[in-house]
Amino acid sequence: MHGDLLKQILNSVREGSTSVDEAMSRLEHLPFEALDFANVDHHRAMRCGFPEVIFCPGKTAPQVATIFSRLAAAGGNVLATRATAEQYAAVRAGHGSAEFFESARCITLRQTPAKPSTGVIALVTGGTSDMPVIEEARVTCEIMDQRTQKFYDVGVAGIHRLLSQSRELRAARVVIVAAGMEGALASVVGGLVDAPVIAVPTSIGYGAHFQGLAPLLTMLNSCATGVAVVNIDNGFGAGFLASRINRLAEGASG
Amino acid sequence: MHGDLLKQILNSVREGSTSVDEAMSRLEHLPFEALDFANVDHHRAMRCGFPEVIFCPGKTAPQVATIFSRLAAAGGNVLATRATAEQYAAVRAGHGSAEFFESARCITLRQTPAKPSTGVIALVTGGTSDMPVIEEARVTCEIMDQRTQKFYDVGVAGIHRLLSQSRELRAARVVIVAAGMEGALASVVGGLVDAPVIAVPTSIGYGAHFQGLAPLLTMLNSCATGVAVVNIDNGFGAGFLASRINRLAEGASG
Amino acid sequence: MHGDLLKQILNSVREGSTSVDEAMSRLEHLPFEALDFANVDHHRAMRCGFPEVIFCPGKTAPQVATIFSRLAAAGGNVLATRATAEQYAAVRAGHGSAEFFESARCITLRQTPAKPSTGVIALVTGGTSDMPVIEEARVTCEIMDQRTQKFYDVGVAGIHRLLSQSRELRAARVVIVAAGMEGALASVVGGLVDAPVIAVPTSIGYGAHFQGLAPLLTMLNSCATGVAVVNIDNGFGAGFLASRINRLAEGASG
Amino acid sequence: MHGDLLKQILNSVREGSTSVDEAMSRLEHLPFEALDFANVDHHRAMRCGFPEVIFCPGKTAPQVATIFSRLAAAGGNVLATRATAEQYAAVRAGHGSAEFFESARCITLRQTPAKPSTGVIALVTGGTSDMPVIEEARVTCEIMDQRTQKFYDVGVAGIHRLLSQSRELRAARVVIVAAGMEGALASVVGGLVDAPVIAVPTSIGYGAHFQGLAPLLTMLNSCATGVAVVNIDNGFGAGFLASRINRLAEGASG
Amino acid sequence: MHGDLLKQILNSVREGSTSVDEAMSRLEHLPFEALDFANVDHHRAMRCGFPEVIFCPGKTAPQVATIFSRLAAAGGNVLATRATAEQYAAVRAGHGSAEFFESARCITLRQTPAKPSTGVIALVTGGTSDMPVIEEARVTCEIMDQRTQKFYDVGVAGIHRLLSQSRELRAARVVIVAAGMEGALASVVGGLVDAPVIAVPTSIGYGAHFQGLAPLLTMLNSCATGVAVVNIDNGFGAGFLASRINRLAEGASG
Amino acid sequence: MHGDLLKQILNSVREGSTSVDEAMSRLEHLPFEALDFANVDHHRAMRCGFPEVIFCPGKTAPQVATIFSRLAAAGGNVLATRATAEQYAAVRAGHGSAEFFESARCITLRQTPAKPSTGVIALVTGGTSDMPVIEEARVTCEIMDQRTQKFYDVGVAGIHRLLSQSRELRAARVVIVAAGMEGALASVVGGLVDAPVIAVPTSIGYGAHFQGLAPLLTMLNSCATGVAVVNIDNGFGAGFLASRINRLAEGASG
Amino acid sequence: MHGDLLKQILNSVREGSTSVDEAMSRLEHLPFEALDFANVDHHRAMRCGFPEVIFCPGKTAPQVATIFSRLAAAGGNVLATRATAEQYAAVRAGHGSAEFFESARCITLRQTPAKPSTGVIALVTGGTSDMPVIEEARVTCEIMDQRTQKFYDVGVAGIHRLLSQSRELRAARVVIVAAGMEGALASVVGGLVDAPVIAVPTSIGYGAHFQGLAPLLTMLNSCATGVAVVNIDNGFGAGFLASRINRLAEGASG
Amino acid sequence: MHGDLLKQILNSVREGSTSVDEAMSRLEHLPFEALDFANVDHHRAMRCGFPEVIFCPGKTAPQVATIFSRLAAAGGNVLATRATAEQYAAVRAGHGSAEFFESARCITLRQTPAKPSTGVIALVTGGTSDMPVIEEARVTCEIMDQRTQKFYDVGVAGIHRLLSQSRELRAARVVIVAAGMEGALASVVGGLVDAPVIAVPTSIGYGAHFQGLAPLLTMLNSCATGVAVVNIDNGFGAGFLASRINRLAEGASG
Repeated sequence: MHGDLLKQILNSVREGSTSVDEAMSRLEHLPFEALDFANVDHHRAMRCGFPEVIFCPGKTAPQVATIFSRLAAAGGNVLATRATAEQYAAVRAGHGSAEFFESARCITLRQTPAKPSTGVIALVTGGTSDMPVIEEARVTCEIMDQRTQKFYDVGVAGIHRLLSQSRELRAARVVIVAAGMEGALASVVGGLVDAPVIAVPTSIGYGAHFQGLAPLLTMLNSCATGVAVVNIDNGFGAGFLASRINRLAEGASG
Repeated sequence: MHGDLLKQILNSVREGSTSVDEAMSRLEHLPFEALDFANVDHHRAMRCGFPEVIFCPGKTAPQVATIFSRLAAAGGNVLATRATAEQYAAVRAGHGSAEFFESARCITLRQTPAKPSTGVIALVTGGTSDMPVIEEARVTCEIMDQRTQKFYDVGVAGIHRLLSQSRELRAARVVIVAAGMEGALASVVGGLVDAPVIAVPTSIGYGAHFQGLAPLLTMLNSCATGVAVVNIDNGFGAGFLASRINRLAEGASG
Repeated sequence: MHGDLLKQILNSVREGSTSVDEAMSRLEHLPFEALDFANVDHHRAMRCGFPEVIFCPGKTAPQVATIFSRLAAAGGNVLATRATAEQYAAVRAGHGSAEFFESARCITLRQTPAKPSTGVIALVTGGTSDMPVIEEARVTCEIMDQRTQKFYDVGVAGIHRLLSQSRELRAARVVIVAAGMEGALASVVGGLVDAPVIAVPTSIGYGAHFQGLAPLLTMLNSCATGVAVVNIDNGFGAGFLASRINRLAEGASG
Repeated sequence: MHGDLLKQILNSVREGSTSVDEAMSRLEHLPFEALDFANVDHHRAMRCGFPEVIFCPGKTAPQVATIFSRLAAAGGNVLATRATAEQYAAVRAGHGSAEFFESARCITLRQTPAKPSTGVIALVTGGTSDMPVIEEARVTCEIMDQRTQKFYDVGVAGIHRLLSQSRELRAARVVIVAAGMEGALASVVGGLVDAPVIAVPTSIGYGAHFQGLAPLLTMLNSCATGVAVVNIDNGFGAGFLASRINRLAEGASG
Repeated sequence: MHGDLLKQILNSVREGSTSVDEAMSRLEHLPFEALDFANVDHHRAMRCGFPEVIFCPGKTAPQVATIFSRLAAAGGNVLATRATAEQYAAVRAGHGSAEFFESARCITLRQTPAKPSTGVIALVTGGTSDMPVIEEARVTCEIMDQRTQKFYDVGVAGIHRLLSQSRELRAARVVIVAAGMEGALASVVGGLVDAPVIAVPTSIGYGAHFQGLAPLLTMLNSCATGVAVVNIDNGFGAGFLASRINRLAEGASG
Repeated sequence: MHGDLLKQILNSVREGSTSVDEAMSRLEHLPFEALDFANVDHHRAMRCGFPEVIFCPGKTAPQVATIFSRLAAAGGNVLATRATAEQYAAVRAGHGSAEFFESARCITLRQTPAKPSTGVIALVTGGTSDMPVIEEARVTCEIMDQRTQKFYDVGVAGIHRLLSQSRELRAARVVIVAAGMEGALASVVGGLVDAPVIAVPTSIGYGAHFQGLAPLLTMLNSCATGVAVVNIDNGFGAGFLASRINRLAEGASG
Repeated sequence: MHGDLLKQILNSVREGSTSVDEAMSRLEHLPFEALDFANVDHHRAMRCGFPEVIFCPGKTAPQVATIFSRLAAAGGNVLATRATAEQYAAVRAGHGSAEFFESARCITLRQTPAKPSTGVIALVTGGTSDMPVIEEARVTCEIMDQRTQKFYDVGVAGIHRLLSQSRELRAARVVIVAAGMEGALASVVGGLVDAPVIAVPTSIGYGAHFQGLAPLLTMLNSCATGVAVVNIDNGFGAGFLASRINRLAEGASG
Repeated sequence: MHGDLLKQILNSVREGSTSVDEAMSRLEHLPFEALDFANVDHHRAMRCGFPEVIFCPGKTAPQVATIFSRLAAAGGNVLATRATAEQYAAVRAGHGSAEFFESARCITLRQTPAKPSTGVIALVTGGTSDMPVIEEARVTCEIMDQRTQKFYDVGVAGIHRLLSQSRELRAARVVIVAAGMEGALASVVGGLVDAPVIAVPTSIGYGAHFQGLAPLLTMLNSCATGVAVVNIDNGFGAGFLASRINRLAEGASG
């Protein structure tokens, strides 16, 4: 669109119907994205597999449904996070094939054929109460065409559960660790694998846990190398970043 | 002394030289400890092996030396923590056999024959920078006649170092874990052993470590059972408590 | 390398140049103790009296019931903490003899004959509002076959209540102190007894109490020796650790 | 409006229809007390015993000396807090009778005859390292003509030291408690006495003490009634307020 | 002293040696401005356009209605912030023309003719969830007769949206930026414009957002010059201050 | 009771039926309070006017009613704080004359004739939302026979409201200041009066107020002398301490 | 420069030596600022009076001198903040007329003729220790050609000092308040004036002051309207923003 | 149990009923991977390019030199972080070709031929004071054979500097953003690129910056997707993780 406008201006310069000074003046008034930036967005919109994402809290069910439909119209996959059953009902009215992942609190709509990645993203979690967070990561990875493998309930209090699966864990390309309580799992996993580790502190705990502050600090101070951290309970952010990294490794980006 | 006073009052009642009312009035003015409490202290002072302890910071070298001598006069062992070389010099002038543990920053004077415990207190630490803290615990344990065993430099980032010694570790009666950085070591050790675990967060770290807050929170939130925590860098407190527990197990206390 | 070493050992066993016992001995010294670890768990499961524990929050009543039954099938005692009446109802449907301790918010199932300990664990608390926490500790101790003695409602604002019972208190083997508000009780008790003191800050308070932060800091900074701290409101953790310590003293462990 | 009113009053004075006394009385009831406020300060300056106070940090020695001389010129007592030896030297050059209290870090100049109060302010402190703070309180009380009594080194870890002096302590009119570490002393004292208790948390401690935050929270959450708190290390503030209260009780104010 | 001075002035007025004007002039220079202060409030009440404001939380609907009516009686505009629909209903019963801005949670009553400012206050916000805060600012500005321009939903994650409007943005006289999440928008806007920027952190976020602490710190530390900050979610405060600044620029004040 | 026991022992010593050694042994087993301490409590219970106090949160209505009746039986006044209407209903069933102060959330029972103090306790508050806290202080003062005077709604944003009442305010013996928002009122009042000031931060505010942390810090750092602070929202504590101080001044205590 | 490039491209299009497609491709590779953005900077550089600013900490004296010279070469005024005497010495070597403001820790170089503003910026501060911060604000204002007026040492503990100058204070166009301790001054000033108030918390204080956190929270929660806050000790930021606002009022900007 | 199983396997090997390969296969499936774990470390040591790393603080110069030599003996590259000039001198004595990067505070020893990666790691930083942190990242990347590109001094306060390089920035495979002050740069960069972004908050700032807490929270709350965070000032951690990710993309790992 802006490209068209630019072309039109240049053509009229070429044809002499617009003077150079006039053209310069008009170009200066073009929004920034006219020349380059909007491409970014187009680029984004066109790269199938990278879904458009809706963060649902604070939106009414009809609002979510409306935004969902608008995004779906672009033809790519759609992901809504932190969604409620009520919001899902509103979405499903317009998109019968939209799926709801209750534990993950996510709605997805797949419109492109799935092309699972070769490499695997490992999903590691300490306890069953971290499930909503790691599941949000999993749903995010999968709508982005990533293969995932679950390593659930392998907390450090019974470290043999984790160690007994270390071979499979080390085969993963990227590892996401979601852990509440003291969050020590990220450090132990970081010491076991060579893959990049995305750590997600969860708000599961009580007392001096301070709604996730404890594992957040644990993970930021990890003595294991190769660990980076996202916000408390941000399973989506971890899944999105892990998917980006794995795509790099698949040669699908550059 | 108070016992004597009490006896004297009772005797004079018996002899009739003091009336019952007069005796009651005098007894009411006796300090509380007269009847029971001071015994506690006597009891304490007489139990050899439980050293009297001096916390050195904020005291001048002569002050430390004076207190040290006064405590030493009671005949038991003496321990001074967070001591400087200068304070040690002042102490040694009066007590040639006093020892200085530079890394632990402790001065000890042994005046009772050593009677090492049967059970062992394991001293576990994540990195060499936690040394001053774990050494303070070790010196405390040893002046209290406890056998100790070192498991130094077994941090979770290379967990096999810890696992390779888990058999010996599990043989300990009490375990002290001193760890800085993210402090995850306490949880991992807590998951490996059945012994009581005393966790000491250390102030070793930077950034979001906040001078020990990070491992403190980690340890308080440990998902491993059987773990309790002392103040940041409080190696003495951990050593003292571990010794008390081991004494219980040795049947030397009650 | 280890693979090679293993092959070499196995070959020499096959060839008879190494005996099975010799091979086992060599294999046992291989790092990471492949042969020993899983035993730990069995060991745990078999030691009657150490119950399996379920942390109920975030689990549905049917989930709690299912896990409870699975654990009960192992034959040992079972403990569920932070349970609701609804969760208890679900458990009782399958286990008629399961008990519910409303104040402690615990469900227990005793399947082994009770063998009360000789030594006593003292349960000290400052006010009636700390009841749920100290009761969680008590139920934990008792399902672990520990004798307990209550010293409830002896807060420092009326210190004579505590002092009048100091003789009995000093007779305990291990002391648990649960206190909210400013948590000073732990220091006072720590100054009165020689036994190990497990301090539990509670979330009872308001304003600058910050949901338990105030007594937590108080207890961590206690000037009394022999005090260690568990998480805010963690009555279970205190009871579990106190039981472990008392077992050591009873010679029931090693 | 007020201008009009004022003009009207002045005119009626001029005209003789309002007497000067009547005018003064009406003016005194005008909002904002134009006529009275500055008196406050004179009033203050003239009430002997209430010293003018200089907070020394961030001032050069000459600056302190200059301000000191200006205040001394008013004829009352002078107090400078947090003073250094160097600042004292500068002050003494002009005021040979000025005294320096090294531990309290205070300079005083007494210019009015001492009239010690009848009632006593008790000064209670947990350990020798809290000395600078409690001494600052003591010097403040004494330059304000208050009698004080020392109860030093009676920390809760050995509570019999405090209890053995409880009779004398209960005889005090006001009690100041300065305590570092966990600050539990304020609660215990608050439970023993009926007098108002001013609690001063001190910055003495380490680790999770956070430079006085721990005893500050302890004291704010005290379960004892009749306790109020001043800023960390604010011995002056406590001494000043205690003196004000005791003066009320002496009938010297009202 | 002032009493004396006052008497002296009054006497000299009475005696005729001082004129009333001279007396008034001298009295005006007496400290504390008895004659002027109350005027301030009248001054305030009379300056139309600066509304009287009611902060509704913690007030019942009838209370809000009563206060609203009392303020309305003064003839100026009235603004009530953080109002509920129920409170609005109570207000509307008495003031049929009062308006309710649901998203902004504001009730307004316009009683003076609108005189929109020449200069514009730009209202910039990062996401739709910051709407209630920026709308509170907008309603505040408008009831104070300020022209506003919306730059909504121009968060930094898609910075071209902001850049494409930078020309209009730079034309504003004052800029209000309301942003939650990480609050980076204030810095970016601060770097684009020369106008004063009032930054409002919002409580929109989760996890390590700590209810607005994250964007608050971001905005306070902004490396852009010309940015000042108001309390979290304080859209009213930002709107009020921006209006004051714009009035200065309009020459309507001074 | 204990006095009787003591007398009996002494008598039997006198009569020779008990030996001195036997007497000493029995005396050592008397609880501490036997000689002196219990008197304290008796003393307390008998001093009419100092009410027994019940902190209601976390107690059921029947529990509150039972404790209330037990305390009332002692004949003194009774105060219950943070009470609900339901708890009041339960209390009133047994004590028809018990009063409920809804805004203060207090129940009182007066059983001693009121003897209002001569001196006055000033109750100062910044805004109407601080009402519950200052009213809790007022009810506490009055059940303790203190005269009070209200200075409500005199916040610093319109400082003339406060200044216009400064004369009356300065006539008070003790001043309680309850303030939320930024809590600056305590400093301003502290600068105006010579009386002791008890400052109560309230939890009224939002955003960077952190539930009362902001005014708490403000008050602790007050540059005005003679100000001490109680916990956030602790109107009772302020009222109790102010009453104690005023009693000292009335000569009713000592 | 970029303008030239753009013109050149357009000319070659006009002349036919560059095709439209080629031109479009080249335009897409132009940096963003080509059309519009760089003007901003030019615009900035040319507006005399808005100085270029150097933040000195972490820079060596030669580095500061070099940057200073580079900025000076542009012909406008130069300001360096948080400068040391050593850094000044290095600057003065190259710029003999550069001035050093020791208390403000600022270096200035004036190269444009001073044109003092008509309106005045009031500089209000509570105590002499806040001097470096308010002086940094003053130097900033003055190098930006703003007239300033000092209201120093008018803290709220003696509020009459402030009130006695309220007439002059209310005449200012913008007010900067720098205050440490509890920072209440900002609220009191905010309640007195109609001008925009920029509040600067300072790090002057101790204990629960937390290096400026206390007055920062106070100022953010101010119940006075029209107050905004900059970072702790950020005198420069306050001065810069105040100058911007005053310029708006002077009609010098748009 | 495992002991039995092991014995059984060995016996069957000895007896020939199980082949060595079959035995190995079975042993490999034993829990805890005795046979595999140590390989990990060898694997690590042998992969040239992944350097062994020494964290220097708290180590003496000779200690650093000794550890450096031991690591160098393994033949790979060596990296020492947070090193001082004195520590470097000690290292260089033994390794003449060791290099010191003063700004980055790193010592490196390259022993393998450099094989620069194809893809580029972008190093973005807001100001010159963040240099030590971003340089630590750069040195880490380069000793790990990664190509890097500098985007220094492109802070958001002058966002055109960043935008003018966005094309190059978007060409990078991985992006590291180090920023102090408010840390908004990470969000802006995250909104511009598709590559994974590793954000490093730095401790550069003052006041409400709290030594890096402000940008840490900013980065954790970033509204841009694809951003993860490491500890404050942890340039090494960011460089290490970025290198791991880029290696994945280069197909050099798996």
